[in-house]
Amino acid sequence: MMRQFDQDCIFCKIAKGDIPSKIVYQDEFVTAFEDLSPVTPVHILIIPNGHYRDLNDCGEDEAGLLGHILLSAAKIAKIQGISDSGYRVVANDGPDAGQTVFHLHFHLLGGRPMNFRSQ
Amino acid sequence: MMRQFDQDCIFCKIAKGDIPSKIVYQDEFVTAFEDLSPVTPVHILIIPNGHYRDLNDCGEDEAGLLGHILLSAAKIAKIQGISDSGYRVVANDGPDAGQTVFHLHFHLLGGRPMNFRSQ
Repeated sequence: MMRQFDQDCIFCKIAKGDIPSKIVYQDEFVTAFEDLSPVTPVHILIIPNGHYRDLNDCGEDEAGLLGHILLSAAKIAKIQGISDSGYRVVANDGPDAGQTVFHLHFHLLGGRPMNFRSQ
Repeated sequence: MMRQFDQDCIFCKIAKGDIPSKIVYQDEFVTAFEDLSPVTPVHILIIPNGHYRDLNDCGEDEAGLLGHILLSAAKIAKIQGISDSGYRVVANDGPDAGQTVFHLHFHLLGGRPMNFRSQ
């Protein structure tokens, strides 16, 4: 059972279509759209269609949803043509990770070689 | 139903205990251990207890397992004391992401402020 949208959340508004965005994939459970400030040639954000603040805000009831988000990342990587060249999936949770929007989201990054050590 | 271990895979050997590592968390489905070349003060690898090459190698049957890995990341962040300060969860898939071990693994990073833009 998905949670409802939060009417004050910008990502909820994007998932509902109330704020325009370049949506690249959407199904019953997730919405994926282009990041407005891409750090790599392909930079997509994948969010659940319901308001979850972050991973700390998820429990066993969300295991299937979280797995579906990761499987969607692999599917979208294929659509974007970066499935074989490689891609990175990143979730940032809280201040040290620089989380700025408090609706759970996963970054799908790719399109060029990436550096892992410069976190 | 989890897949079996691959007898030639180094991460399978770690999960089985055949190669020593600093295991920080383990349950029926996942094993988490300290990365040998940490990029942040807390740098844990979380792997499934069965051989999956990467996200591309997973399908709907693995949705629950993948969700459990992410929930384990949140749980381990709490154990490591970085749940509130913040943490990053990263999966690297394929050459552009610099994947070097071909057993699906998630990096749990934290313990200091991290940079997101220098991927």
